[in-house]
Amino acid sequence: MSGSNFQFFQLFEHESSTYTYLLMDSESKEAIIIDPVSETFERDFRLIEELGAKLKYVLETHVHADHVTGAGKLREKTSCKVCVGSGAKISCADILLDDSQELSFGSFKIKALSTPGHTDGCTSYYCEGRVFTGDALLIRACGRTDFQQGSSARLYDSIHQKLFSLPEETIVYPAHDYKGVTSSSIGLEKKFNLRLGGGKTKEDFVKIMSELKLSPPKKIEIAVPANLLCGQG
Amino acid sequence: MSGSNFQFFQLFEHESSTYTYLLMDSESKEAIIIDPVSETFERDFRLIEELGAKLKYVLETHVHADHVTGAGKLREKTSCKVCVGSGAKISCADILLDDSQELSFGSFKIKALSTPGHTDGCTSYYCEGRVFTGDALLIRACGRTDFQQGSSARLYDSIHQKLFSLPEETIVYPAHDYKGVTSSSIGLEKKFNLRLGGGKTKEDFVKIMSELKLSPPKKIEIAVPANLLCGQG
Repeated sequence: MSGSNFQFFQLFEHESSTYTYLLMDSESKEAIIIDPVSETFERDFRLIEELGAKLKYVLETHVHADHVTGAGKLREKTSCKVCVGSGAKISCADILLDDSQELSFGSFKIKALSTPGHTDGCTSYYCEGRVFTGDALLIRACGRTDFQQGSSARLYDSIHQKLFSLPEETIVYPAHDYKGVTSSSIGLEKKFNLRLGGGKTKEDFVKIMSELKLSPPKKIEIAVPANLLCGQG
Repeated sequence: MSGSNFQFFQLFEHESSTYTYLLMDSESKEAIIIDPVSETFERDFRLIEELGAKLKYVLETHVHADHVTGAGKLREKTSCKVCVGSGAKISCADILLDDSQELSFGSFKIKALSTPGHTDGCTSYYCEGRVFTGDALLIRACGRTDFQQGSSARLYDSIHQKLFSLPEETIVYPAHDYKGVTSSSIGLEKKFNLRLGGGKTKEDFVKIMSELKLSPPKKIEIAVPANLLCGQG
């Protein structure tokens, strides 16, 4: 599925259970990072240095409410550009990505898929048989829809139209997992996702989401304003 | 590197920071699991059921001192065989693996590499461009050598002769990581491993290991006797 020059690292931040992803073309050394976290900046920047990676882009899947992004720190240390979906309305970003827009690193391309619903500007990214789903699609779950312009009906449409239409063997890499699972596949989520799988209708999904009764994320008052400034408020 | 029928899952147990690996041939559905943990048996067994996997083997990298294995529970629920390195002397095991011995699942083979030093019976496993190193080689670190027949000199030889001789791009999947990193490569560890990398000699390594002054693992009194009975003492 992947060319032999495709190098891939999944990294985990324990406090917010966030996954960060580093993708590199090992020939040209051009690299991108998805959803870096401020707290693990030192670890991630050391790996970038050890690999000799030329960090070209930081891609955010959305304006996170549970952790502060490491994007701004990485932009200070490298010549990378910070990229977010155009719906996210982050004025500090260098590139606002439209649906289906592609970015290249070395000989590889990564494609933005607009997947709003958890937030207005949620964007998934597809690259080399993998889809990075942010908080739109989680493993056997999905992002909440009760704040930050959330809409269950819109999230259902995003997941069905943009993600469940990918090949079943596509590997799903989410922004979080709380049970120690690191990946899934589109085929597994279509069958077994507890909120969306097994042919659940939009009405089923909206009802499930409306009954979740979740408490607000601990860091939302700090994280959202900071992330609107690329983590450097 | 991998055939398209190669399906791979990395799973994490938070209390002991242990990685479990599930490998499957998605055509025949034959699968193996490496280092399952008793506490996450339900999660892992559910994934096996969802995949429709036929679990053929449980492979242990060694007699763990920090967690109880899920091997026995999996053997009760499936027809799998429990496999350990012949040096581990576990009487409950079904198959004792010698150095270089191979097992097959579907169209894939996995090869035992005897890597003693952390314990007498430590075994790494090579499959499809990946090496599962147990506690022999960790990311930028290695297993301790101060109990369970540990020997720093022996561990140095194992890592140099059996692991550092693999192609540099081989992906390293260890039994643990405490910093949220999920993989490395042989090339990165040869350069940057803090105890072994950058051309450190056996004398350097033995000195580093002798000065670590680690406290004993919290669960050793429970885990080792239980694991000598495949987790079902």
